[in-house]
Amino acid sequence: MSPQNSVTARPALKVGVLGAGTVGTQVIRLLLEQSEEFTARSGARLAITGVAVRNVAAPRDESVPRELLTDDATAVATSNDLVIELIGGIEPARTLILAAFKAGASVITGNKALIAAHGPELYAAAAAADVDFYYEAAVAGAIPVVYALRESMAGDRVTSVLGIVNGTTNYILDEMSTKGLSFDEALATAQELGYAEADPTADVDGLDAAAKCAIIASLAFHTRVGLDDVTVEGIRSITAEDIREAHASGCEIKVLAIAQRREDDHARGISVRVHPALVPAHHPLASVHGAFNAVLIEAESAGRLMFYGQGAGGAPTASAVLSDVVAAAAHRVNGGQAPRESSYADLPVLGPESAITRYQVQLRVDDQPGSLATVAGVFAENGVSIDSVRQSAYVGAAEATVTIVTHPASVFHLDTAVDALRGEDRVLDVLSIQKVEGE
Amino acid sequence: MSPQNSVTARPALKVGVLGAGTVGTQVIRLLLEQSEEFTARSGARLAITGVAVRNVAAPRDESVPRELLTDDATAVATSNDLVIELIGGIEPARTLILAAFKAGASVITGNKALIAAHGPELYAAAAAADVDFYYEAAVAGAIPVVYALRESMAGDRVTSVLGIVNGTTNYILDEMSTKGLSFDEALATAQELGYAEADPTADVDGLDAAAKCAIIASLAFHTRVGLDDVTVEGIRSITAEDIREAHASGCEIKVLAIAQRREDDHARGISVRVHPALVPAHHPLASVHGAFNAVLIEAESAGRLMFYGQGAGGAPTASAVLSDVVAAAAHRVNGGQAPRESSYADLPVLGPESAITRYQVQLRVDDQPGSLATVAGVFAENGVSIDSVRQSAYVGAAEATVTIVTHPASVFHLDTAVDALRGEDRVLDVLSIQKVEGE
Repeated sequence: MSPQNSVTARPALKVGVLGAGTVGTQVIRLLLEQSEEFTARSGARLAITGVAVRNVAAPRDESVPRELLTDDATAVATSNDLVIELIGGIEPARTLILAAFKAGASVITGNKALIAAHGPELYAAAAAADVDFYYEAAVAGAIPVVYALRESMAGDRVTSVLGIVNGTTNYILDEMSTKGLSFDEALATAQELGYAEADPTADVDGLDAAAKCAIIASLAFHTRVGLDDVTVEGIRSITAEDIREAHASGCEIKVLAIAQRREDDHARGISVRVHPALVPAHHPLASVHGAFNAVLIEAESAGRLMFYGQGAGGAPTASAVLSDVVAAAAHRVNGGQAPRESSYADLPVLGPESAITRYQVQLRVDDQPGSLATVAGVFAENGVSIDSVRQSAYVGAAEATVTIVTHPASVFHLDTAVDALRGEDRVLDVLSIQKVEGE
Repeated sequence: MSPQNSVTARPALKVGVLGAGTVGTQVIRLLLEQSEEFTARSGARLAITGVAVRNVAAPRDESVPRELLTDDATAVATSNDLVIELIGGIEPARTLILAAFKAGASVITGNKALIAAHGPELYAAAAAADVDFYYEAAVAGAIPVVYALRESMAGDRVTSVLGIVNGTTNYILDEMSTKGLSFDEALATAQELGYAEADPTADVDGLDAAAKCAIIASLAFHTRVGLDDVTVEGIRSITAEDIREAHASGCEIKVLAIAQRREDDHARGISVRVHPALVPAHHPLASVHGAFNAVLIEAESAGRLMFYGQGAGGAPTASAVLSDVVAAAAHRVNGGQAPRESSYADLPVLGPESAITRYQVQLRVDDQPGSLATVAGVFAENGVSIDSVRQSAYVGAAEATVTIVTHPASVFHLDTAVDALRGEDRVLDVLSIQKVEGE
């Protein structure tokens, strides 16, 4: 009888937890409360031997037994079969994880910043030690995006991934969209409710999404992509007026993490970027609200797949961590290993100038016959093809607003066209230029 | 250097394919066209040694090399490392898969009918032979539902799964909803376009969805659930009038596969059923159109997760099959195994009388003061709590139509209440009773 079928023969695995914050507390609570289920599912009894925290004496949730607490993180990292790293940030997380690998432990983490910065070093260390390294919780909380890209798409070719992977910015944009708030007002609300940090930089400047985007692109395209490869633009400059204009165009503004394969006459490689974009209201990503996350994968055979769920929070993130714990434990019992880093495709990461996207350009023009023809001509001459044009003339005014949505174009062609427009007498002003994603 | 890092050291695995229909053709084409990618991802060269078909001489897609064709299915089943079963149906698929296991092959299939009918026998045979058995393609095509339930939720407790898992009925209902067609007209359209079979029984009577629902429930609740455990209701009786009424209530009618855990004073166990239900228009499942599938999982920690994608078709199903092929191949190279059947929870499968759902009841009543109070009183006396009431009176008429939506109730309580309503003088007729799902 194999071990997983016999209760008495079930081996015990020692589990160490680094960090007892929001996620750590939930992970510990669930491991203790549902220990029989974890035993049945993983084939091993999972025994928490230590929880490393900075301050053992600090008040904390009663789910975490005090006798497990220690401030010796290195001891926890190096004396267990499975180590769950939930302290976040680069150091000491990196050093502790490397020590855990060296001590023969499999590691489960949700540390996107660390993986985006030091992924290859960590993958190599896990492979050298012949242990598992899992990080489902690093991208989009409870949504199994890492699995989907790493394993579900293993028999397919991903062409693009579009994701809403930062709940804080999605919440802020939602507040702006539904209540007409300014960015500062919406940010303040998000901070009051605990959706945004006191220092909101990582979220509102797109860095959190960029780390996740690097991980997504690495997995989707079997290529090493680090944080520095991601072109990032945050949401600080988005105004209430931008949102109103988006609504007038039948769109919502969303911060998207985008990883795209490009293989045409002009470029071959992958484009990896985070920026706000207009998304048509009928597109599934437009209706992802509040702190929810969603990831849309397009692949050659599978077509379009969408995954939606809670992208953050203690319990949803704990769910992702614990699924990895069960997988790593099962490998200890039955053999086998987590998929290793796969970077065989080694595609070039294209610079920001090679990103292809649609644009919405708003112009103030002289309301004379022929103005529209002039504008259209300038786009055509500069290799930018137009998808739609909308003109709003004001009664009695000598001016009109023209809103142009282009077909996908490179930023180079778009910039050249806009420069040329500025030189036209009939074009009085370039009011706004926004990216448009999702069809 | 481990095998997966060295091209020269890469082992070859023999792959046999049973069936070369729509899915089989795509699987073979992709394995041949993208062989380098499959080698890089699985760690092994995957060499197709034979493709078993009924008629070797029949004309077929040129993607399938003629020299691989054979009518000796048993030879293909018993002489390979990996066997991909795509002939469908119970026999000879069952016998061939058992023979493959006995010969030491891992098996990948998309055969939902076979798994729903003989799952436990197949799981046991795979375990006895110490080989893998994968069936991602059996539920919802390219959407990784099997993985999500079996592995992503391994660290969580699923409370319910609601799915649109039959594209044919979803297409028919969509045509009825958007074009006002009758069931027969919509079915004819679906048949013309190849979305429905000449004999549409398996789809329109809910049997295909029931097989998938049994698989979903087994995985979600770690309990053996077979086809016979599923309460099934098809869509033949749905009229254009029903759809109009649904729209008037702000709903769409969808066929749902439902697997729910129930743990209250009245029942403990799982409810597993397929039936049409009103779904509020704002619910994510209401906007799943055409041949698309979607599965909504609710779990204690993760909260609500939704997966959406193409549920059928050659290429999307091939994508799911090939992800399983890569996983099974990687186990041959690196050790390890697919998760085994997990039925430790062994929850009772509740009968249809224990299903808890909301209902919409439409009544024709005497338009007199007090009629509404009478109706409300009858529901209350019979233990059915009312969520909303809508009354449409016709000018000058002595009658009104009352539409009641209840809170979740058992069919027993609902039936008792409706019987009592029929006995009331003021209730002239019970016009319709429909289930309502999704909040």
